[in-house]
Amino acid sequence: MKLEDVILVSVDDHVIEPRGAFDRHMPEKYKGHQPKVENLKGRDVWVFDGEATGYMGLNSVVGRPKEEYGMEPLGYEQMRQGTWDVKARVDDMNANGVLGSVCFPTFPGFAGQRFQMSKDKKLSLAAIQAYNDWHLHDWSNAAPGRFIPLMLIPWWDGKAAADEVVRMARQGVHAVSFSDNPALHGYPSIHDPHWEPFWKACSDNKVMICCHIGTGVKPEHASDLSPIDAWITSMPMSISNSAADWLWAPMWKKYPDLRMTLSESGIGWIPYLLERADFTHRHHHAWTNSNFNGLKPSDVFRKHIMSCFIEDEFGLKNLDAIGEDMVAFETDYPHSDCTWPESAETFWSQCQGLTDEQINKITHLNVMREYSYDPFSILGRENCTVGALRKLAEHVDTSPALGMGGAAPKRDPSKPVTSGDINRMFSEADANTAL
Amino acid sequence: MKLEDVILVSVDDHVIEPRGAFDRHMPEKYKGHQPKVENLKGRDVWVFDGEATGYMGLNSVVGRPKEEYGMEPLGYEQMRQGTWDVKARVDDMNANGVLGSVCFPTFPGFAGQRFQMSKDKKLSLAAIQAYNDWHLHDWSNAAPGRFIPLMLIPWWDGKAAADEVVRMARQGVHAVSFSDNPALHGYPSIHDPHWEPFWKACSDNKVMICCHIGTGVKPEHASDLSPIDAWITSMPMSISNSAADWLWAPMWKKYPDLRMTLSESGIGWIPYLLERADFTHRHHHAWTNSNFNGLKPSDVFRKHIMSCFIEDEFGLKNLDAIGEDMVAFETDYPHSDCTWPESAETFWSQCQGLTDEQINKITHLNVMREYSYDPFSILGRENCTVGALRKLAEHVDTSPALGMGGAAPKRDPSKPVTSGDINRMFSEADANTAL
Repeated sequence: MKLEDVILVSVDDHVIEPRGAFDRHMPEKYKGHQPKVENLKGRDVWVFDGEATGYMGLNSVVGRPKEEYGMEPLGYEQMRQGTWDVKARVDDMNANGVLGSVCFPTFPGFAGQRFQMSKDKKLSLAAIQAYNDWHLHDWSNAAPGRFIPLMLIPWWDGKAAADEVVRMARQGVHAVSFSDNPALHGYPSIHDPHWEPFWKACSDNKVMICCHIGTGVKPEHASDLSPIDAWITSMPMSISNSAADWLWAPMWKKYPDLRMTLSESGIGWIPYLLERADFTHRHHHAWTNSNFNGLKPSDVFRKHIMSCFIEDEFGLKNLDAIGEDMVAFETDYPHSDCTWPESAETFWSQCQGLTDEQINKITHLNVMREYSYDPFSILGRENCTVGALRKLAEHVDTSPALGMGGAAPKRDPSKPVTSGDINRMFSEADANTAL
Repeated sequence: MKLEDVILVSVDDHVIEPRGAFDRHMPEKYKGHQPKVENLKGRDVWVFDGEATGYMGLNSVVGRPKEEYGMEPLGYEQMRQGTWDVKARVDDMNANGVLGSVCFPTFPGFAGQRFQMSKDKKLSLAAIQAYNDWHLHDWSNAAPGRFIPLMLIPWWDGKAAADEVVRMARQGVHAVSFSDNPALHGYPSIHDPHWEPFWKACSDNKVMICCHIGTGVKPEHASDLSPIDAWITSMPMSISNSAADWLWAPMWKKYPDLRMTLSESGIGWIPYLLERADFTHRHHHAWTNSNFNGLKPSDVFRKHIMSCFIEDEFGLKNLDAIGEDMVAFETDYPHSDCTWPESAETFWSQCQGLTDEQINKITHLNVMREYSYDPFSILGRENCTVGALRKLAEHVDTSPALGMGGAAPKRDPSKPVTSGDINRMFSEADANTAL
């Protein structure tokens, strides 16, 4: 296989909701109450239900020179257009050689946490549904075959969650973004019967449950003085606590077709987790009463739980210890870990020990099967390769700084950027934009 | 090599302090104020500075039938004698084929956290020093060549910490138990100049800094309803957050001879962490200002940071990706992960891809070098092997339940034991033994 023949589908990217995303999808009753962008003290912020979200773009730094990376985008003009404009996004995907993409929300939180916290549950449900409708019709369907649409659900009512799954699945949406640990947000844990209708709806409608890092377990800052690099390093693995929790959760026995993805998890640590889980079951089940009906926790993982990688040479070298049928590729566009516009080359440099069949599985076949995604019938397989897509992108300017405006942070290059620096920046932004 | 020729040194075991451990080591001024065991409502508890520690043994379940595992030991009579009696401990080490052992404290917390929380700092320092003197003279020196003594230090004063390191190093102690993240206990973070005298003292005196899981970052219970197995599974890896923090900490540049151990870390996840750390440095240093003087974070790890394993087939298979010079063996006696009395066989079944040189390094040579431990000059190398030690243990009864008394927990075998069950047990014990 050559690089230009690879077909890349990414299960973890992010969309910055454009201004006005909710305007035409909010029901008549709530017109005027939809989430909207306001400019507060020079900063574009989303306002909903009387509260402002201080940071709109988080680390949406794709296309900047690396010296300017950080959490600073203050508004739309300081982000690359592909972060929020769907046509520019497709251009950027083409330039990166990427066919398909799962795009997580930004302002609502990766799993719609923002909408779970409001007191007005009817308004919140309307906003969730408006989000889902925008995401499907205005974002994903603007470029048929190029996106795997992703829905949000209400957490406070298992039946309402199931209803939303059914409503969206009927329109072809087969992925839902969900917290890796709702108990940490004050909602019932994944072991609670509260979620039973949700599991059933996902299983019945073949909907993939996508749990992005940071939606439950928080990647912790070790201390204020810790260089931010330490936090970046341990961030993906922070989901290992939840991965273990899902391994022992009760829904897999009842719903053999149910699937989840650990989104932005990395993969190189998974073999250790699986061995440790199997050890735990073998060594401790006599007193913990754990019971896998003769199977092992690693069997549950390999059947039900997908993991994904941006760069992960060690994980790819040990693909057999993870399971080649449930690993997927991601680019994390437009966040700072993204290797755009060279994600294809990065992957290619790490997959040289794999067979063509393994490469096809982890780049697209696993995702097409598990996310019910069929781009070939729309676009033709020959038009889906890295080589074919890049031909469409010859007009795309990928040089650094394009469209960034003047948001470059000023930093003293002799001092490490610390967790405290980043946390203070967030606190100041929240204080500055409090309504 | 044959199993009987292997020489096993464990860098992570635990001692239950025997009744009266502090009595003869507390200075005259504080006689009567030393930590002591009292029996409260049928439970042996340690009392110090007006507060009782509800659980004395945690999961000190070695020697019990597995059905009876848990956190329940209520007193000395319900634990195997080897947990607290040094002669019985050596018998149990012999039966397990283990030559040498680093024993972490129990009642003081693995890193002496209990002593950092008291208001009376002079009394606390006296208790720390009494602990160190007991641990060296009464525990370790009771069996020359069989223990690697481990000291505690005061955290509230960097100079006092350094002084205690020097005092104990002069008596031959070359390991100190320290928190993997003191900032989480309200003390300065490892990036703070507060610790400068401590780093210097450890480097000057070749003292290994041992950071046991649970002494800083807490392995989190995902939810009350989560089976306790999930917590057990992700527990060792919980230290990965701190491992990343130490990678970016400032002391390595200044003290090339300084070393630390991630105690009870497991090793199979380390290659992922190192690759991720190197990616973070390469991909982000332009804005985070991280600087390794041309080296990589993984170089720092392989030189300065030791990790260890109980069972870890995947890690041992990938020893080259971790670094064979800084990996060590552990048994975790007497905790529930321990495979006593078959730890030697467990290791042997997992090391078959390794060379004799590699086996010798990870079973004892690395530890002898980095912990300044020289059992051969005392005992003769030929008397240190699994085969030789087991010959000394023919009288040791290793059959389950020996000496356990009637502490078996009553559990419904149809229900999983949850995090909530375990946490409630601790809360009740604390409430029942409040002074």
